[in-house]
Amino acid sequence: MPAAGSVSTHANSRSVILDAVRAAGTISRVELVRGTGLTGATVSTVVRRLIDDGLVTEVGTAESTGGKPRTMLRLDPTARYAVGVHLDHGSVTYVVTDLGGDIVARTRRAGIGSAGPVEVVARMTGEIGAVISAAGVDRDRVLGVGVGMPGPVFQGAGAFTPPTLAAWSDFPLAQALERSIGLPTLMDNDATAGALGEHWARAVPGSVCLAAVYMGTGIGGGVVVGGMPYRGASGNTVELGHICVDLDGPECWCGNRGCVEILAGPATVVATARERGLLDAGATGASVTGDFAAVARLALQGDDAALALLEDSARYVAVAAHTVATIMDTDHVVLTGPSFGVAGSVYLPVVRRELETRYFARGNHPVGVTISPHAYEAAAVGAAAMVLQSELVPRQSSVVLPASLPDARATVRR
Amino acid sequence: MPAAGSVSTHANSRSVILDAVRAAGTISRVELVRGTGLTGATVSTVVRRLIDDGLVTEVGTAESTGGKPRTMLRLDPTARYAVGVHLDHGSVTYVVTDLGGDIVARTRRAGIGSAGPVEVVARMTGEIGAVISAAGVDRDRVLGVGVGMPGPVFQGAGAFTPPTLAAWSDFPLAQALERSIGLPTLMDNDATAGALGEHWARAVPGSVCLAAVYMGTGIGGGVVVGGMPYRGASGNTVELGHICVDLDGPECWCGNRGCVEILAGPATVVATARERGLLDAGATGASVTGDFAAVARLALQGDDAALALLEDSARYVAVAAHTVATIMDTDHVVLTGPSFGVAGSVYLPVVRRELETRYFARGNHPVGVTISPHAYEAAAVGAAAMVLQSELVPRQSSVVLPASLPDARATVRR
Repeated sequence: MPAAGSVSTHANSRSVILDAVRAAGTISRVELVRGTGLTGATVSTVVRRLIDDGLVTEVGTAESTGGKPRTMLRLDPTARYAVGVHLDHGSVTYVVTDLGGDIVARTRRAGIGSAGPVEVVARMTGEIGAVISAAGVDRDRVLGVGVGMPGPVFQGAGAFTPPTLAAWSDFPLAQALERSIGLPTLMDNDATAGALGEHWARAVPGSVCLAAVYMGTGIGGGVVVGGMPYRGASGNTVELGHICVDLDGPECWCGNRGCVEILAGPATVVATARERGLLDAGATGASVTGDFAAVARLALQGDDAALALLEDSARYVAVAAHTVATIMDTDHVVLTGPSFGVAGSVYLPVVRRELETRYFARGNHPVGVTISPHAYEAAAVGAAAMVLQSELVPRQSSVVLPASLPDARATVRR
Repeated sequence: MPAAGSVSTHANSRSVILDAVRAAGTISRVELVRGTGLTGATVSTVVRRLIDDGLVTEVGTAESTGGKPRTMLRLDPTARYAVGVHLDHGSVTYVVTDLGGDIVARTRRAGIGSAGPVEVVARMTGEIGAVISAAGVDRDRVLGVGVGMPGPVFQGAGAFTPPTLAAWSDFPLAQALERSIGLPTLMDNDATAGALGEHWARAVPGSVCLAAVYMGTGIGGGVVVGGMPYRGASGNTVELGHICVDLDGPECWCGNRGCVEILAGPATVVATARERGLLDAGATGASVTGDFAAVARLALQGDDAALALLEDSARYVAVAAHTVATIMDTDHVVLTGPSFGVAGSVYLPVVRRELETRYFARGNHPVGVTISPHAYEAAAVGAAAMVLQSELVPRQSSVVLPASLPDARATVRR
């Protein structure tokens, strides 16, 4: 039950207007009134304060039909920044993004390996300071730090427990980092963050319900509906690597059988490539994503055996994309994460064909499929977007609701 | 972008309080203040008006710890009613429910068969009048009519196009019914409505994210998250019968292959039973659900072949339940619809075992599995709940958000 009476109208209007400006790119005050349902007086007052705070700038005029020219507004992307961290098995990626979600600095370091929590927090604190310096931005303009990591995530106390990192069980990472860095720190599943990053960077304007299929070391996903990440009961959503697509399939590390990840994930692709002699055992083995990239390079260079291997994986990934669309009624699927960064061109046509020809509600709306413009850093960019959104679009102002409900209600209300 | 500034505080507080009273069963004013975040003065004023309107009644006192006894409040279930209609291939079910979602009258008629839209609207108008009369309720207390039907649903103009009813393509059923009956009319997918019915009737108190797996003639589903039906981009959600669980499986009527419905749905169970001589061809064939019920009765009477057939179907249904839990992070699954009404006791243990032993985030939270208390009329009860909810909990007051987000934000805000 939301505390409906506890949100001040001003704070609410401010976040509604900020998000409308962000989503539009450029927009006039008149269009803001039309798009938000707020009064002209409220829009004027709030926009004036946003300009005073440096968050919004005026960027010239647009011709209006018949009336006087309208002054256009847009976010000042340099007004605020956020740090995004992707803590993965094989590597840790740090980015600084501006208010528009564009990367202004990035670094990649080795994965956390066998290091314990205290050492990792110290290392991350140093790296975060360094990437902020490298970006050349004023620390006062950095809103906070977002951390994305493989699930399942325990949100209760900011703790997490990736199944492959048992030593980290119940360690309150977000709190420890926040104390150490002195900046607000948020944590979430990497694929959920990745989906928000695609939304925030406006990679798919007009999507009401956007799914991200994330492929790095493993396979995951996230959905953003009505501009907010869908989180379900506990934040462990859209685990596309661990849906069963073969009831008699092989056992997965998660305890299930016939999972998409065990049948078609990068680790399986790499193991099969090695079995078939496609990878030189001596020159590889540093990380699953590195070896997967090597298979992808072979395929793109014309190696038919490597291509066949990826196309077989793509059949399963396509079914996973189809399944999330059928269950969550998404209107777009973005393929993101480093493994799609290298092999997306092989997967894209297979996923597209699956959704074009087999999606249940295809008579109602198509499901678009694209590759992320920032697939390699998707989880880190998304983790930064979590911070930007938590500052700009507080949860009380957002309603995660059906595109179709207004129409259904119009039938009742007219 | 919701028109955040356009909701009056009073209307919002009223719906928040009404829903809190409904969800609690009985609750005191002090608990309402604590649970909603509204002020004591607002709660007092709004509760007084709800009592004056007859929607809420005082029902005696509860002991408080140390203070004076508190007057308890509850909805008056007889204050308002709604009509729910399930328009299915084999039959049309009509119910009248009270404000608490309990059935006060019901009728079942033959399916619409080859009748055209105009004839069906006339027939439904008569039946709805008759079921309201049978309930013995004042028509002024009937809030409206909800209609649930098989998907895909086109919400745009209140039209629908079940793929098996091509003649109905683009017919504006909700509008036509509303004109003919003179009551507000809502329409939605039957399984989505069914999920809302489970939530409304408080069959699973405490669930934040509730999935309904619906099995009637086919297999579908719906999810209610934070008290609101999840609707995605177009209202065609949780189509569990049409997710692929066998990439090389048989073709389904929907254009996909290896769908749960074609592998394990009632029509397939019935066809297999007939092939194996379990059903007497002469005595059956009236409807898929009727024939499925005959197979279920054989199994429950100890016929091993019939039982094996249902248990094989249950393996696939269990994977479908697992998949919706893995993607939408549900904390409970309700098995509902007439086919679970007759065979739920065979399916329940199979679905439970699947989620207990194989659900990805089982270390985070369990996923409960139960059979609906009104499985036979689930879609009609849910269609009535749609009407009750549209009156009592308007969309602006509801935030469909993650259980986990408050904690994640607390980490930032402290």
